[in-house]
Amino acid sequence: MKNKIRIIIWGLGSMGSGIAKMILGKKGFTIVGAIDVDPNKAGRRLYEVLNMDPSEDSNCIVVKDADEIIKPNCADVCIIAAASFTKIVFPFIKKAAEAGMDVVTTAEEMSYPKAVDPELSEEMDKIAKENNVSILGTGVNPGFIMDFIVIALTGVCDKIDKLTVSRINDLTCFGKAVMKEQGIGLSPEEFTKRVKDNSVVGHVGFLQSFGMFEEAFNVKFDEVKQKKEPIVTRVKRSTDTALVKPGEVVGCRQLGSAKLGGKEFVKMEHPQQIRPELENVETGDYINIKGSPDIDLKIKPEIPGGIATIAICVNMIPLVINSTPGLKTMLDLPVPRAIVGDVRDLVKGES
Amino acid sequence: MKNKIRIIIWGLGSMGSGIAKMILGKKGFTIVGAIDVDPNKAGRRLYEVLNMDPSEDSNCIVVKDADEIIKPNCADVCIIAAASFTKIVFPFIKKAAEAGMDVVTTAEEMSYPKAVDPELSEEMDKIAKENNVSILGTGVNPGFIMDFIVIALTGVCDKIDKLTVSRINDLTCFGKAVMKEQGIGLSPEEFTKRVKDNSVVGHVGFLQSFGMFEEAFNVKFDEVKQKKEPIVTRVKRSTDTALVKPGEVVGCRQLGSAKLGGKEFVKMEHPQQIRPELENVETGDYINIKGSPDIDLKIKPEIPGGIATIAICVNMIPLVINSTPGLKTMLDLPVPRAIVGDVRDLVKGES
Repeated sequence: MKNKIRIIIWGLGSMGSGIAKMILGKKGFTIVGAIDVDPNKAGRRLYEVLNMDPSEDSNCIVVKDADEIIKPNCADVCIIAAASFTKIVFPFIKKAAEAGMDVVTTAEEMSYPKAVDPELSEEMDKIAKENNVSILGTGVNPGFIMDFIVIALTGVCDKIDKLTVSRINDLTCFGKAVMKEQGIGLSPEEFTKRVKDNSVVGHVGFLQSFGMFEEAFNVKFDEVKQKKEPIVTRVKRSTDTALVKPGEVVGCRQLGSAKLGGKEFVKMEHPQQIRPELENVETGDYINIKGSPDIDLKIKPEIPGGIATIAICVNMIPLVINSTPGLKTMLDLPVPRAIVGDVRDLVKGES
Repeated sequence: MKNKIRIIIWGLGSMGSGIAKMILGKKGFTIVGAIDVDPNKAGRRLYEVLNMDPSEDSNCIVVKDADEIIKPNCADVCIIAAASFTKIVFPFIKKAAEAGMDVVTTAEEMSYPKAVDPELSEEMDKIAKENNVSILGTGVNPGFIMDFIVIALTGVCDKIDKLTVSRINDLTCFGKAVMKEQGIGLSPEEFTKRVKDNSVVGHVGFLQSFGMFEEAFNVKFDEVKQKKEPIVTRVKRSTDTALVKPGEVVGCRQLGSAKLGGKEFVKMEHPQQIRPELENVETGDYINIKGSPDIDLKIKPEIPGGIATIAICVNMIPLVINSTPGLKTMLDLPVPRAIVGDVRDLVKGES
């Protein structure tokens, strides 16, 4: 019997905790380390932090300082779920890769890091190759529904004239951090101000999706634009962590556009809000390809954000382990798929 | 400038001709040979057979006998669009691979050849590796919409309980060969008889899709079943090549089912018919995943069969050229994508 795949989880926020729980529900994984700076988590057993029953696969003590546990060959894969931006997770990725671990990260910018940080991307690719590991950023968006699946669908097209992609999703189940990032509860004026000073970030991902399109189609867009608008409610909307009055902001409508040869080639629309049903907004993922042939896809309701990001990070682990070394994107690896049985059986060669 | 990618097309039926035309519409390809046994095609220039304007990339003479043109290093890729079954295309594939060409084939069984011909599959893998080429079977179905895309969607699932996949499509635009294969115009009794003696084959692909699911999820189904039922019309339905009276067969409804652990895990439904709108049948592709999360996808109308199969065969060419040697499936290669610019720019290394 092969050894279990040894995982370190770096970051135990909602994504990291979800990933840890999903991993512990699969056969063939063991979590050998976990890192979180939160004083309510560090120092406790992982299973306690996750509010699960004890098991040998979740018995490690959560540490605050990565250096305590990241040593050469201490684990096979490091999952980094600590931030959205490449510049922030880069030192974490470097440390894990240099210790010989493959890396999977939820950091949105890492789904296509060349878009914003081409030099850091080159450096990560070099580090990965020197240490014989692979590095992947993924998630439901960016990384899957507004880019990867769109690109896959163009695989049955002779010609593409325009891609229109829309993801209308529900943020109701998310916590305070997301409410703040999206500007929920602000006045429209305050929202606009905070978009300008980057304290309302909205969706991090359009530049990465555009970068993925450019690579997939081997084109260079003439112009890429995005903007963030407040979604203002006409009715009271509340969640466990937010209470919004009429006239205030219940979410962020992100719009994106990429031109090729002077014409709009990709149009993206991503309004995210709490309690969309209160104003009869139907959530869903929509992909429309104008070309030969036309393709019109609808997924209703939308693929739910939290669980889907958690799942794709876990499901990509065996594909990342099997990959050639380097910095990878979803364009480089074989098609994702759910892990149904023992993950060890999906790993090629000896473990 | 790199040399153009040199293509041989083996089989100039509707798929092979469509592939040739699409290739000639892209930058960076040249067709250096074409093979067809039809005396109306063999002996003529390719552009004449395709009913196109002359060009240096379509100037070759269509030959009847492959040995006339298939010589070592005579082309980079051979497209085989000559039959549905692995046993029939195997000698063609062998000849092309042994001459050093990568192979892409429309043969439905080749989308997952291990399902029906495990020994021939091993042999093809060996031939491919010995000759440093790769071999891929693909198409819209099997190869894409009822398997590959379903598998990709499970990539965002923690758990999958049941996959229900339905493709309701329109055969109106197809020719006499398809009408015959599908039993169109027969009485229901004659249809049933011909299904038994295999002169009505219906859709060739469920066993291949099931095989692809088994490999993707690393499972072995307890039981796999399929059946073919006549779709009987209540109204007169006609096309350019068929005229069907009420009470006669306008198509074949193929049903498939795969069990895992005693429970139905995959359910497939694929009714194909002419003029579905005359009895208010809405065509479409439908994928439903029961699991965590549930996903409900609709593509309406369905991805059209002909152009989509043509396109995916062409679009996979650079990915097949870039692949490691061996017999490949859509599960092994990076995600398909439309070819937008010059195909040579998509090929890694020297040409």
